[in-house]
Amino acid sequence: MDDFRDLTTADRRPDRPGGRGLVIAEGVVVVRRLLGSPYPPRALLGVPAKIAELAPDLAGHDIPAYQCDASTMAEVVGFHLNRGVLAVADRATPVALPTLLAGSRVLAVLEGVNDHENLGALFRNAAALGVSGILLGPRCADPLYRRSVRVSMGHVLRVPFAPLDAEPFAKGLAELRASGFRVVALTPRAEAKPLAAAGLSGAKVAVLLGAEGPGLSEEALAAADEWVRVPMAPGVDSLNVATAAAVAFYAALDA
Amino acid sequence: MDDFRDLTTADRRPDRPGGRGLVIAEGVVVVRRLLGSPYPPRALLGVPAKIAELAPDLAGHDIPAYQCDASTMAEVVGFHLNRGVLAVADRATPVALPTLLAGSRVLAVLEGVNDHENLGALFRNAAALGVSGILLGPRCADPLYRRSVRVSMGHVLRVPFAPLDAEPFAKGLAELRASGFRVVALTPRAEAKPLAAAGLSGAKVAVLLGAEGPGLSEEALAAADEWVRVPMAPGVDSLNVATAAAVAFYAALDA
Repeated sequence: MDDFRDLTTADRRPDRPGGRGLVIAEGVVVVRRLLGSPYPPRALLGVPAKIAELAPDLAGHDIPAYQCDASTMAEVVGFHLNRGVLAVADRATPVALPTLLAGSRVLAVLEGVNDHENLGALFRNAAALGVSGILLGPRCADPLYRRSVRVSMGHVLRVPFAPLDAEPFAKGLAELRASGFRVVALTPRAEAKPLAAAGLSGAKVAVLLGAEGPGLSEEALAAADEWVRVPMAPGVDSLNVATAAAVAFYAALDA
Repeated sequence: MDDFRDLTTADRRPDRPGGRGLVIAEGVVVVRRLLGSPYPPRALLGVPAKIAELAPDLAGHDIPAYQCDASTMAEVVGFHLNRGVLAVADRATPVALPTLLAGSRVLAVLEGVNDHENLGALFRNAAALGVSGILLGPRCADPLYRRSVRVSMGHVLRVPFAPLDAEPFAKGLAELRASGFRVVALTPRAEAKPLAAAGLSGAKVAVLLGAEGPGLSEEALAAADEWVRVPMAPGVDSLNVATAAAVAFYAALDA
């Protein structure tokens, strides 16, 4: 039960390896994704109706499913939770980079995406559009933070990701190129090619994405093979990074 | 100054026509968009640095710009506001439907988009990708709610919108068709054509969008000329409505 206590601080767990929190899934849909993911579940806590709904998914998992009423749940968790069920899981060893590269056609490579909601939305869009995996470059947030898991609708548990932590970052991008990927930077700069003219469909592509606001670093832009942009109406600064990514994933994946 | 009091309830103003609130813009970027919009501004309230930043935009507007410190501002507004400046404006008469149709190539038509954040994000994406206007069908939220204005980054003030309130809704859609638009429903249904195969680029298109979750009504689907879908990976239910819209706008607008 202790795993469920005071979830507002659940992302900091000095008692756990690396000081990072357990994986927390909220709501039937996300708990179901967790139970079908590589993350080893530890326990469930929920109101009886939600635990019953998850019974088929729990078959084969030898873990406790604690039942209580909504107010007891709120007391344990530290706030009122309107989704009625929670699961906690251990973190899993990330996929090895070579394994991820070997099986991928379209990858997203993130630099400085440090907002948990944007990161979660990006994983959701990657899952929906069929991106094979996500590489986390410098200064990215942790996709397994509770808020990222929630905003992603649990897809951070489903889309494989791995750190791309070679130093400098350009070296990591060169490794992608050596593995046969076109490294394509998404940027609003006028010199970039419009997405539709870039001919990404069918190619092995690593789509390089920076945070909303600052965008990609000069280093990342210089290390890319080409620059592409979502054509924008005059006077509009930018799209949200997860939305721009969705458009780029569509352009790269759609036949 | 009363216009700025207790903004947490600013969207309900029984003293104003229709009982709906004034238009509230938060932050330099959005206030700037408001000052360049058809909405008649009434006043500004902000910390001196932000008011100074907006001085060029205020030229030609004969309105008061009240300066105070951040804590006085928080007291008036009812919460701490980290963007440092606010503007209020009157609502304006919506664009007439025939005017909007006459000048448009790609329109969005919304049904049941009743979440203020999704609605705001949808306006932002429409503005970025160059959609000509947005038609609000049945059960849509009010784009001029404070939260919609904020999430849209002020683009609800920039993208023209009009109610499509013919009864039944199918009649409104038939009017669009009579004005030369292909009425294209975006739906995840398997029978729908993949976006890229629909040949929307270059055509006059009204993209029909329903709320996340329920999607479009049977009535709306039956009244559409054709169904299109964003190709989705197996096992993924849906994209956020504003994100799906962005992909569809891109497909319809990109040359």
